[in-house]
This record gives sequence, structure tokens and C-alpha cells, in this order.
Amino acid sequence: MNSPPQGFQGYFKTGTEQEDAELTHVGPGTPCGEYMRRYWQPVAMSEELGELPLAVRLLGEDLVLYRDGSGNLGLLHRHCAHRGASLEYGIIAECGIICCYHGWHYANDGTLISAGSEAPDSPIHGRVVQGAYPVHEHNDIIFAYLGPPDAIPAFPVYDTEFMPDTERKTFSITTPCNWLQVYENTQDPIHVLHLHARSSGVQFGVASGVDQIIEYQETPLGMMNIQTRHVGEHVWTRTTDSILPNGNQTGAIWEEAEEAKSMQRCSILRWMVPVDDTTTRTIGWRFFNKRLDPRGQDNPELVGKESIDFIGQTADERSYEEAQRQPGDYEAQVSQRPIAIHALENRASSDAGVARLRRLIRQNIRHLSAGHDPHRPDFRGLPFISTYCQDTVVQWPGGEASTEDDLRAHGRRVAKAVLDSDHLEPQPRERFVEDEVTDKP
Amino acid sequence: MNSPPQGFQGYFKTGTEQEDAELTHVGPGTPCGEYMRRYWQPVAMSEELGELPLAVRLLGEDLVLYRDGSGNLGLLHRHCAHRGASLEYGIIAECGIICCYHGWHYANDGTLISAGSEAPDSPIHGRVVQGAYPVHEHNDIIFAYLGPPDAIPAFPVYDTEFMPDTERKTFSITTPCNWLQVYENTQDPIHVLHLHARSSGVQFGVASGVDQIIEYQETPLGMMNIQTRHVGEHVWTRTTDSILPNGNQTGAIWEEAEEAKSMQRCSILRWMVPVDDTTTRTIGWRFFNKRLDPRGQDNPELVGKESIDFIGQTADERSYEEAQRQPGDYEAQVSQRPIAIHALENRASSDAGVARLRRLIRQNIRHLSAGHDPHRPDFRGLPFISTYCQDTVVQWPGGEASTEDDLRAHGRRVAKAVLDSDHLEPQPRERFVEDEVTDKP
Amino acid sequence: MNSPPQGFQGYFKTGTEQEDAELTHVGPGTPCGEYMRRYWQPVAMSEELGELPLAVRLLGEDLVLYRDGSGNLGLLHRHCAHRGASLEYGIIAECGIICCYHGWHYANDGTLISAGSEAPDSPIHGRVVQGAYPVHEHNDIIFAYLGPPDAIPAFPVYDTEFMPDTERKTFSITTPCNWLQVYENTQDPIHVLHLHARSSGVQFGVASGVDQIIEYQETPLGMMNIQTRHVGEHVWTRTTDSILPNGNQTGAIWEEAEEAKSMQRCSILRWMVPVDDTTTRTIGWRFFNKRLDPRGQDNPELVGKESIDFIGQTADERSYEEAQRQPGDYEAQVSQRPIAIHALENRASSDAGVARLRRLIRQNIRHLSAGHDPHRPDFRGLPFISTYCQDTVVQWPGGEASTEDDLRAHGRRVAKAVLDSDHLEPQPRERFVEDEVTDKP
Repeated sequence: MNSPPQGFQGYFKTGTEQEDAELTHVGPGTPCGEYMRRYWQPVAMSEELGELPLAVRLLGEDLVLYRDGSGNLGLLHRHCAHRGASLEYGIIAECGIICCYHGWHYANDGTLISAGSEAPDSPIHGRVVQGAYPVHEHNDIIFAYLGPPDAIPAFPVYDTEFMPDTERKTFSITTPCNWLQVYENTQDPIHVLHLHARSSGVQFGVASGVDQIIEYQETPLGMMNIQTRHVGEHVWTRTTDSILPNGNQTGAIWEEAEEAKSMQRCSILRWMVPVDDTTTRTIGWRFFNKRLDPRGQDNPELVGKESIDFIGQTADERSYEEAQRQPGDYEAQVSQRPIAIHALENRASSDAGVARLRRLIRQNIRHLSAGHDPHRPDFRGLPFISTYCQDTVVQWPGGEASTEDDLRAHGRRVAKAVLDSDHLEPQPRERFVEDEVTDKP
Repeated sequence: MNSPPQGFQGYFKTGTEQEDAELTHVGPGTPCGEYMRRYWQPVAMSEELGELPLAVRLLGEDLVLYRDGSGNLGLLHRHCAHRGASLEYGIIAECGIICCYHGWHYANDGTLISAGSEAPDSPIHGRVVQGAYPVHEHNDIIFAYLGPPDAIPAFPVYDTEFMPDTERKTFSITTPCNWLQVYENTQDPIHVLHLHARSSGVQFGVASGVDQIIEYQETPLGMMNIQTRHVGEHVWTRTTDSILPNGNQTGAIWEEAEEAKSMQRCSILRWMVPVDDTTTRTIGWRFFNKRLDPRGQDNPELVGKESIDFIGQTADERSYEEAQRQPGDYEAQVSQRPIAIHALENRASSDAGVARLRRLIRQNIRHLSAGHDPHRPDFRGLPFISTYCQDTVVQWPGGEASTEDDLRAHGRRVAKAVLDSDHLEPQPRERFVEDEVTDKP
Repeated sequence: MNSPPQGFQGYFKTGTEQEDAELTHVGPGTPCGEYMRRYWQPVAMSEELGELPLAVRLLGEDLVLYRDGSGNLGLLHRHCAHRGASLEYGIIAECGIICCYHGWHYANDGTLISAGSEAPDSPIHGRVVQGAYPVHEHNDIIFAYLGPPDAIPAFPVYDTEFMPDTERKTFSITTPCNWLQVYENTQDPIHVLHLHARSSGVQFGVASGVDQIIEYQETPLGMMNIQTRHVGEHVWTRTTDSILPNGNQTGAIWEEAEEAKSMQRCSILRWMVPVDDTTTRTIGWRFFNKRLDPRGQDNPELVGKESIDFIGQTADERSYEEAQRQPGDYEAQVSQRPIAIHALENRASSDAGVARLRRLIRQNIRHLSAGHDPHRPDFRGLPFISTYCQDTVVQWPGGEASTEDDLRAHGRRVAKAVLDSDHLEPQPRERFVEDEVTDKP
């Protein structure tokens, strides 16, 4: 190894590198924007939508979302195709919405029902259509598809939405930075150790602060990381998956790995949705059940609009000084700049997950740009898409004496069982994983 | 007619067209800015001017307006010609204003009375002049002329300023969008039907919500629209005129057309003044008399700075939710974008007035750019300029059975009488119009 | 002399000239930025630094300043060299600071102590260094050097810091405009007459409103102006020096020149520090002693963060109307525009000091750009750098009957004595000046 660099090198470190536009810009016509537009994206929580239109912004587009008098949803370009007045001031009709300015009446698919005072046989009816997008409301979240209409995918439903005896609350959190730095944080398990345990004191479970063996593996949906660590006499293997392009599942927030279990599923299913290049809105579900939270540390009452029941996720929950004293994900991600500049980074082995996720996203973007069909999740004959996030804990023969290689081999065995069982229903899948990993450290 | 366009076309409707700079940009040296600079423009209400200088902005120029110790007005470029300190911090003198920084003293025409500590015979006196513009105070409004000094027009005074038994209040309202979308709204009579009656409930008179026959006609001052409609047994013909480049007159706010009358004049004379490309200040007079307001619905106490006595004109009068529930001109105009993008519009027959007004303005801009003298209003031997805004109501023979063609012909007759009589004093003109239109449906 | 220009020329005075970037832009790599980076610059008052990192900005660079657990200071680039999270959320260690996100630990010189979870033998340790700058804490001000490490100058200490029986308070004031307009104000003695006496009423001493003879002279540190005026039977000569690139000393605020004295030193030593191109932070010391303030008009309690004990220096001390009624330096400087545009100025003989200061700065910038070493102050064998700011008052033979030439000659004599004595300790220097100027008008 050469001698380390000298100190006081600030003068030489004032680079003017720019962000990686291919991965971070999401407006119409951009490579990543096109990629994002091939998938259903959450646009709002159902509870945000009352009797008035809601101005929203998604992938750099100004839109208006509303529920018409028939209970059907519409998602239209915000500015009226006639003379540009905003449909956030539109009058909601029994079917569709009417622009306040000249009474142009649009159906929920953007077609023109009536052009105000224009004659019914005016050629304008043959020419005009308001920009509109298909929406789908599912479990209190409204999803939209902003891509080409002939390439609309089946609406994805995930296995973890069907956990028994489980409550669910929707949440939505705005982060003023690029989507990718919010998203890649989920394939960066090292930060849990530092940011959430050592830098700021223990923010989640105590066990999450224990050093872990980390591996990464691609899945049919994207990728997962595999974290394996000793917790007392147990070994805990967590897999966290990225459902491309921007979905994520995360295991129990306060997991302590105190007893053996297999395939315990996630406490959060969420999407890091690009509002525009420098604003991200994370929308998803927070799941509650006894298995995920045996000690009753979850707090559903704190879960909702710009709020969630664990620390460091929003701007307004704390003063600047409090955030300095105990920074969380919000401070780390936002302070990476409005759009993090990869060319200024010094990535190391602990960034392998982030690097791999970026590489996967870039491959998918270029795959699409090259004219290929986007990758789409496969239901594999099940009524839902199988996912790969889970926690498995085994009692470890011989206590903590195992080597790193033992832990790594065990983690791989768990991951292989999770992958190999993705054609099964939840109960058989859990038994399959249990059989594969128990008593075979 | 071909089949109408398909729905869900948002993906194909994300155009990046830009505004029409020729009609909307108003800074020094721009085509429309040059055009605007050939006319007197309101710059402030007299009541805004106290004993301190007033920082104002007009046509993209930063200026300072003040009344000196002799009672004379000055309108100077805001930054001192010496070293740029703002004259809004200037010391008002018996004659002119003194820059606070080094005591340079300017006359109201911008000439240098004294350069502070410079010797009286310093050559600086022969070199420096502060940018200044002529001003004219008239009926509590201060007007300025920002054009070339050798092309200054006579100050225009309009017939409607001399209505008998009439009170007058000045008002000034700021709208954060381009001047043209505020101005063209006045040649868009269809919006009255929709925005002010059907979208938001009745905002003005009930009669203004009745379907009308609309025609447009050029006038010596610009253009007018002619709105003719049945109201019970009467036919009401309203003409609304545009006094180019940016003046407007509008009839009685709460007109119900319940009795026959001829040539009832306007309740508002105003100018939509470009502060800069994305801010407009409407300054003018609101007129009050028994004829215009027989029911006492006007409220002079609400008329003044950023306030007027009818709904939907300002930002601060209502919450966002209230504005969504009952949008007005403010919401419609501002939400067309900071500068509306004509290239994204889908204009139809009901936009004929807007299209014609834009065409007229463009012709005038190009006329000037081509080196011709700007069009100037003609006093035609009268002590004022005749204008064309009026309401005429006749009792209709045969009640409501008339055809659209009958109404159109009647409207044209009214308009012709109004135009043909513009060389007459108000009383003879009113009799002329009455004679021309009564008993000759 | 030709006839003066005509009035109402605003139409012809709408120039679009731009700022002089060579003198005003200070970011990395700019000519003036490079020049500024060859000198120690104040970055904060010691009192601003508590137990948390302080986000600061200097010469257009985002930095973080902190005092570690050993009491040593660090000034690092704000964004972590690893993945860009801000070190304002860093955890202060016994030595250095730890990034909150992944635990990368930097020494105060930016070298990497540990890369979080990376193995100790990871090659990353041989590659990465966080941008860092040397700092020096001196009399409650923290100074930083942002230039090339091999060109770091000796830390300068000035003679006026050693005035006997003197108290000192640090202050820091932010002005939202370019540094040069704040700085050149100190070589613009004419403005004192106007802004601080005639425009706004007397803001400082009454004597400072008396007309003066002004000359300018280069010094080994930069330049000084020499102001000589009659005050009753005395003649007062003030020299105010500019310590390039951006230091200034100013004499007693409330000087009334009522008794003879020699070489009375300054009441302020300060630096006009460019935060970026359009923000300036003036940081320095305010000195208090009986000689400088015989009447007790100083008020140390008002001196500190964004506050000082004389009028017109900050944004928040007064309402806009109060500032209009009695404008001060803040209003004059800020209103010259975010960056004053020299090409629009009309400089006259009273701007000779400003012109000379700009010329000197430009010479120094070009001297450096041409590859020469920057000029550095010389200690001349003393324990401090001799400076040139002082007030000398003599009883004038023959009262006020002297001519301008007499005053000018006297002022030059004082200035020569001040310059000729700069190799002496304070006491002998004061006697030297007194000998040279007394009884030899």
C-alpha cells in the first residue's frame, strides 16, 4: 500500500462534476423517465383525495387527480388542453371534470365530452384530447401508469399484502432530493450499522447494530441483500429486496432475533416515487402484526401523511439542532445534495449493494432505450407476485463460535431457499424455507 | 367527422413548446415592450405616494417614483447613475431627489443639479443624466411614458370619465402572470357564461349567465365584442372595448337588463399594465352611479389597493380551498402558467375574440417594428376620446320568439350606431343610438 | 463645457452591461477567488462554535467547521468524500469528525482515520482524503486558509491588536451583496460626508460631516486615504487603511478632534469576507478604550453576531420605512445591486479612492494569474505588522484661515510620518509622528 494522501488538500478538491443524468433525471423523454413510465407508480394516498381536485406532480409532470361524482378516478394533465387554465380549479362532474374557465368537459380518460359553448358538431371534438393516464386504486393507494398506452402492464399485487392477521396503514413522505439516493439507501445495509446504531444511538432494534455478513443477489424482481449475523445464540438472516424500478420491502423495524422463525415477512412495502428530479415521495404501506412486533413497539397512529413511527424520516419532526444530534435517513439522504454526484464519490467494498443496484437500473434503462420490452414481474401462476424480503432466525449449534465463512454459507442457504420457493403459496413456502435451513447450519 | 381521439394519451402530450415572446415579453428592446412604450401607462395610484420615494417596476424596469417638495412628480431609474445606489433611499428635495450615498442631486427630468462634493465646474455635469420619464397625474392615477422622448403622445382622456352624477375610486390589483392573459380575458365573453355563472355559481348579474350571440368588431381604438341576449322580454346588447395596447372598459358589474336604455356606459376603465413578463398590475377607476347600479350592489369601500368589490380578482381574499370551490378570474388567469403557452392551446370558435385581439396586437407591434408611427387615438374635435363600451336594452316585439339571426342583426345595429355616433357629445350620442335601435328590431 | 444632457432620457438608459467578473467572482478557479485564497480569511467568531458542527460558506465553498473533543479545530468540505452526506450531521470525535451515514472518520486535516466498516487494510485508505483547510484561532476569531497548501502564509498579527488598556469584542455582519461594494466603501471618504451626515442626519461624529481634503496613498499593505479638515481651531488628519485583499481599519467612530493627539489608532479591524459572489460577511474586532471614546458613546453590548453599535449596518435593525428615512451603509451598499455593475457607473473625482482600490486589486489579481507570488505583509522585524490607520489632531496656528493647499500639505506630512515610522514600536512611533507634525503646519 502506498502512503496515504497528505492532509489539507481542500484546494485540490473543488471539483465541478455533475450528476449522472442517465440514472437521476426523470422528466418526459429522459432515459430514466422513460424507464419509470413503464411501471405503475403510486401517486397519492386515497385519504388525500376529497371532494376537490388534487394538484399532484409525478415524474416532472404537473397533474390533477380527482374522484368524480360516480366514484371513478381521473388523472389528467393539470393545464386544460383548451387555453391552459388549471384543472385543480375544475368542477368535478358526475362523470369527469369541467374546466372552470370555459366549461370544457373531459372524461376520466381525457376525451372531450363537451367543449363548453362550442357547437356539438364542432370539429374541435375530433381534434382535442386532454392528456390523461390510467389509474388504479388498491388498498388505499392510488397508482398511475404514465407510459405508452399500448404497453400498460398488469397491475402488480404482492404476496406480502396477504399476511394473515395483519393491519395496514398507508403513508406518504416527501424528501427534497433525487429519488435514487432515497432508493439506494435500501441496498446499503452498512448504513444501518452506522447511521441507525453508532452515529445516533440505537434508532431501530438493538440487533440491527451488530456487525453482519452481507451478500447481494439478483432476484426475478431486481435484487436483494442478505444480512447474516449472530445475535446471542441465534443466527439471523435478513433479506431486503428491491422491486425494480423503485419498490422496496423492509423487514420488521425492531427485530431482535430472539427466537427461531422462518420467512417472517416485511413491515413496509413502499415505492420511492420521483416527483421530479429533486423531490421524492415515498408512498407505501406499513404492516402491523404480532409476529413483526411482539413487543408492541409499532405505533400505527403515527403513520400517515408526512409521518411514520420511526425516527429520522421527515423534515418537520425535529429542530435542526435535534437532527444534528441524532441524524436519520432524512438528513443523510437530503444532505447528499439535491442530486448526489456519483462522480465525486469514493465508493468502497461496503457500497457493493449501491453499485449493483445502480448497475441493474442502468442495464434496465439501456435495455429499454435499445428498443426492448421492459422487464415485468411474473405472477408464476399465483394470485400475487412472490417477493423475497424476509427474516429467518435459527438457533445456532455451538453458539457464537462460528466463522465468517460459516455465517456466509448459512446466509446463502437461506437466500437460496427463499428464491427456490417463489412458486409456492406462503404457508408451503415458509415450511420449505424452514426445512432447508433448520438443523443444517 | 373522423372518430374522436382515443383516451389516455397523456404520454404523447408532454410538449415543451415555449411562450409567444413577440406578444408577451415587455422588457426594453423587445417588440411588445417597444409597442407598450409608445403609450401612457398607469404606474401607481396617487394614494400610494407619501413623503418617501416609492420603488416601482414597469415594463421590466426598476424605477423610483416620488413627489418632491414643490409637489412635482419624478419617475427615475431606480439605480443612481453615479454608483448605482437605489434612489428609493434618496432624500426628497424641494426640487428633485438626492441620492443618499454621495449626495448627487437630480431634477425630476433626471438632469444633474449637483454632483455632491464634485466641483460645480466638473465635466461630470456635462456627461451625466439619470434615466427619467415624463409623468402625468390624472384623477388620482399617476401615468408614465417610457418611450422615446420625441414621440410622446398627447395624454388621452376618455368620454366615460365625464359621466354625470358619478363617483370614482381608483384601484390597483397585482396578478402574478403575463399581462396578455389578464388583458385578453376581456375579449373572451364566453368565459363570463362559464367561469362567472356555471362553474362557480353566479358571480355577477344573473343575466350575464344567459347564452349570448357574440360578434367582434374593430374600432378606432382597437376592438370590441358585441354580446346580444334575451333577458325575459328584453334584448340586451353589451359592447366591451379594448383600447390598445392594454386599456379596457367594462359595463355594469351586476347588469340585469330589466328596462330599456341606450348607451349606458362603463363601470370600469382600467389598464392591464405589465410590471414585467410575469407580473401584471391592473390599475384603473371603478365608477359608481345610480344608472350603473340601481340596486346598490356596488361597494366603493372595497375598492382600492389590491382590492375590488367583486369576487375572484386577488390572491389574498380567499383560502386555496375557497378558490377551488368558486374559482374566479384570478385563478383562471394565473393558472394558465406564468406566461401562457399559445402553442399548446386548442382554440375554437369561442376564442375568436382572443385570437382577434392577439392578431391586432401583433399587427401593431410589427407596424411599429417596421418603422411606422404607432396608432394613436384621435380626439375627433371633442374634449375627450370617444369610446365604445356601453349597454343598450330594448323591449323586444314578440317576446323571446326571435331567431339567432334576429339577435345577431340587432346586435350589429347597436354596434353600428355606437360606432357611427363617436363624433357626438354624450347626450346627442345617446339619443342617436336610441333612435337607431328602438322599434327597429 | 458643452451644454448638459437633455432630460427624460430614461428610454436611452436601459443598458444591459454585466458585472466585472475579474474583481467580483470568488469561487474556486476564478481570478479573484484565487487571489483571496492566498490569504488567511476569517470564517467565524469563536462564540458561534458550540458542541455541534457549524455549516459555513466561504468563497463559494460549502464547508463545515467544528471543534473536536481534544479542543482542536477542523474545517472540512461539507460533503463527505465517501458518498456526499453532509458533515454538518457528523459526529464529533475525540480527534476529528465521523460522517453519520457510514462512519467514515476524518482527522482535522481531512485524512481518513477509518472508513467505517471497511477493512483496515482496504486500499480506500490510500486513496481518499476529505477536502480540509488549515485554521487558526486568534483573539476569538477563527481564520482559515483556502489556498494551495505549499503557499500558506505566516499568520498576520497587527500592531493595533496591542493597544494598551483596550477591550475588544468580535462581531460578524452579513450583507447580501458582493464583497467589493462593502470593501470599497472604506476607500470612499466622500460618502461619510453625505450618507452619514447630510443625507440621514449625523450618524457618527459631528466632525465627520465637515468638508475635508482627501488624498490617497499606497502603503506596504495596500493603500490609505488621508482626510484633513479643520474642526474649530484644530486640524484633524485621519488615515484609513486597506489591508489587501479585504482587510480594513477604521478610526474612532465618534471622533470630534477637540484636542491635539498623535497616532490614535483604530476602533475597528475587520475583513469583508466573500461568502460567495453575492453575500459578504464582515468579521472583525471592535476596540474600546478611553482614548477612542472619551465621551462613552461606544456600546460593547450591541457588538456581536449580526449587530454593532452604530447605525445602518444590518438588515434587521430597522423597518423598511425607517431605513428609507435614515439610510446607512447597509442600504447604500446592498441597493447597488447584488453585484454592482461598474460599466454603468459614472465615476467622478470623488471616486478616486474607489478607482485606485479596484486598480490595486486588479493588479494583484493579474500579478498572481501571471504566475508571480502574491504580495505578503512584512513583519519588518517587529512582533506584529505595522498598519497605517490613525487620527492625528494639531492645534492650528492662525485658526481656520488656512488654504486648501496648507491643509493638503499638512495631511501629506502626517501621512509621510505615519509611513516613515512603520519600523518602530507603537510608543516611539507615536512620538515620531508627533515630532514630525507638531508646530510645523
